[in-house]
Amino acid sequence: MKKIILTGITPSGTPHLGNYVGAIRPTLELQDQANVDALYFVADGHSLVKLWDPKLRQQYILEVAASWLALGLNPDKVTFYRQSHIPEIFELAWILTSVTSKGLMNRAHAYKDAALKNTEEGDTDADNGITMGLFCYPILMTADILLFNADQVPVGRDQIQHLEMARDIAARYNHLYGKHFTLPEALIDDNVATLPGLDGRKMSKSYQNTIPLFATSSELKKLIMKIKTNSLMPGEPKDSKDCPLFTIYSAFASKPEIEVYQQAYLDGIAWGDAKAKLFELLDAKLAAPRERYQHLMAHPDEVNVILAAGALKARQRVSDFMNQLKTDLGF
Amino acid sequence: MKKIILTGITPSGTPHLGNYVGAIRPTLELQDQANVDALYFVADGHSLVKLWDPKLRQQYILEVAASWLALGLNPDKVTFYRQSHIPEIFELAWILTSVTSKGLMNRAHAYKDAALKNTEEGDTDADNGITMGLFCYPILMTADILLFNADQVPVGRDQIQHLEMARDIAARYNHLYGKHFTLPEALIDDNVATLPGLDGRKMSKSYQNTIPLFATSSELKKLIMKIKTNSLMPGEPKDSKDCPLFTIYSAFASKPEIEVYQQAYLDGIAWGDAKAKLFELLDAKLAAPRERYQHLMAHPDEVNVILAAGALKARQRVSDFMNQLKTDLGF
Repeated sequence: MKKIILTGITPSGTPHLGNYVGAIRPTLELQDQANVDALYFVADGHSLVKLWDPKLRQQYILEVAASWLALGLNPDKVTFYRQSHIPEIFELAWILTSVTSKGLMNRAHAYKDAALKNTEEGDTDADNGITMGLFCYPILMTADILLFNADQVPVGRDQIQHLEMARDIAARYNHLYGKHFTLPEALIDDNVATLPGLDGRKMSKSYQNTIPLFATSSELKKLIMKIKTNSLMPGEPKDSKDCPLFTIYSAFASKPEIEVYQQAYLDGIAWGDAKAKLFELLDAKLAAPRERYQHLMAHPDEVNVILAAGALKARQRVSDFMNQLKTDLGF
Repeated sequence: MKKIILTGITPSGTPHLGNYVGAIRPTLELQDQANVDALYFVADGHSLVKLWDPKLRQQYILEVAASWLALGLNPDKVTFYRQSHIPEIFELAWILTSVTSKGLMNRAHAYKDAALKNTEEGDTDADNGITMGLFCYPILMTADILLFNADQVPVGRDQIQHLEMARDIAARYNHLYGKHFTLPEALIDDNVATLPGLDGRKMSKSYQNTIPLFATSSELKKLIMKIKTNSLMPGEPKDSKDCPLFTIYSAFASKPEIEVYQQAYLDGIAWGDAKAKLFELLDAKLAAPRERYQHLMAHPDEVNVILAAGALKARQRVSDFMNQLKTDLGF
């Protein structure tokens, strides 16, 4: 039996280098593992909770789907779909809502943080401004996972609680209505690679220090030139440790390439030359995905056809299971 | 434009005389009004919140659907479906969840009552034993209503708050995403007829004083003989006011029949004869529905075919609307 591994993708626009190295690349590696049955979905239903601009949502969905496809997601090898195309997820969400204890949701970190913030700000109503979307989304997430009986879900440490909740809800359901659901496990990678941004801090949209993955060649060059270095002169040996340029280079280069780059540091390469070499490497690696991304963004129908086929595949996967579930509920 | 009037039917088994007179009959009268587009649905999705026995649920769904059909629900005149057959309701429920403020649900009577009960019983956790199903069901109810853009929903006084919530949620959605939803109105009948039960108290399953609508002729006779009367002898004039026999008789008889029955009271009819006359009337009125009910219960496939056709009709009604809704959300 292959392990079913499910990954939700937040539709939050075009990814940057850090997203790719930290999340997209390791997740995409799953599709080539013989013992893995990988599912990837664009979590557009979840986006309703935080994003209230329909145009932006539409754009983000397209960008994120085109990005993953451009980076090698192979819809023939995996199941790739949009959450909102799978009505069964929302049907299951209600079914699970009916058995979930309210206390479990009261303890969800995201909700508790929002309520605490209200209280700390002196609000007499801790729930002020909090939507049921924020309060209930761990149940929708549970439905995402349980519908496909996923064995594992790759998550960051901040998402472990959601997996615990999914297990709780699955166990309660199985207890009430017979064993239907696999209890999913969190697949935690404690060595998530992070990349430094232009200013040396972690690359993150909130720091505005990112390098977009699909920047044009000339934009890419300009951004790389801005990466912070120290003031060592050409000819002076340089320390590759904690050097943003070197960290980014290493994330994309082969082992022999890294060794050559490291030797150049010891040999006192000028920062300008080191940046030129980084640009050369990235531009070569990203040229093909960038071209494919630009093509897909110019032809959204191609993306839509792939997502429609993925939805069909996903719905065929769950059709029998959902029927059985409903029958066993007395529906 | 016809008024869209939507009625949810709780799957709680075979109805009794009180259910019929108080709820079923007035609701069924809607189907014959020229200016009304009536929708009736079996709220089996809601039943998940309170009923955890799948076999009982299945039985109740069949019984309630067969009852309404036996009593004259005409699937050609109205839209008659099971909630669980309409995935769009559950999709919309999540969409509405995302915009509903948590404070609104905190104020729902059913939830507040349950939490208060915990507190009064000294429970340190007010939410002990409360499910998300109980907490969230006003949102599902709102989805039931808004999906069909119902103008009016017949409700008892205890349900007015749910309609207010549906209006609140609809208004908030319209404000955020443009006008999509009709704000539904509660259709309150302050003169809801109630029937006395065998013991003279309101006929109710919880008092175990009911007369099932589809009892056999001999069961019906036996039950009627049990109805409480006073100890006045034959020949003594009797007061029809507050007499359970008379109230039940009046609920089923024509005006001239009632007048004759009332005269018999004044003329001192024996209680045994008054009961025999009530039996005669009810047995005549209920013979045809009883036969049809028994036929449908013996042929559940006939009920299922009607409900499947109703689901198709309901889904065709909402298909364009749901697509537009999703498009306007950026899906």
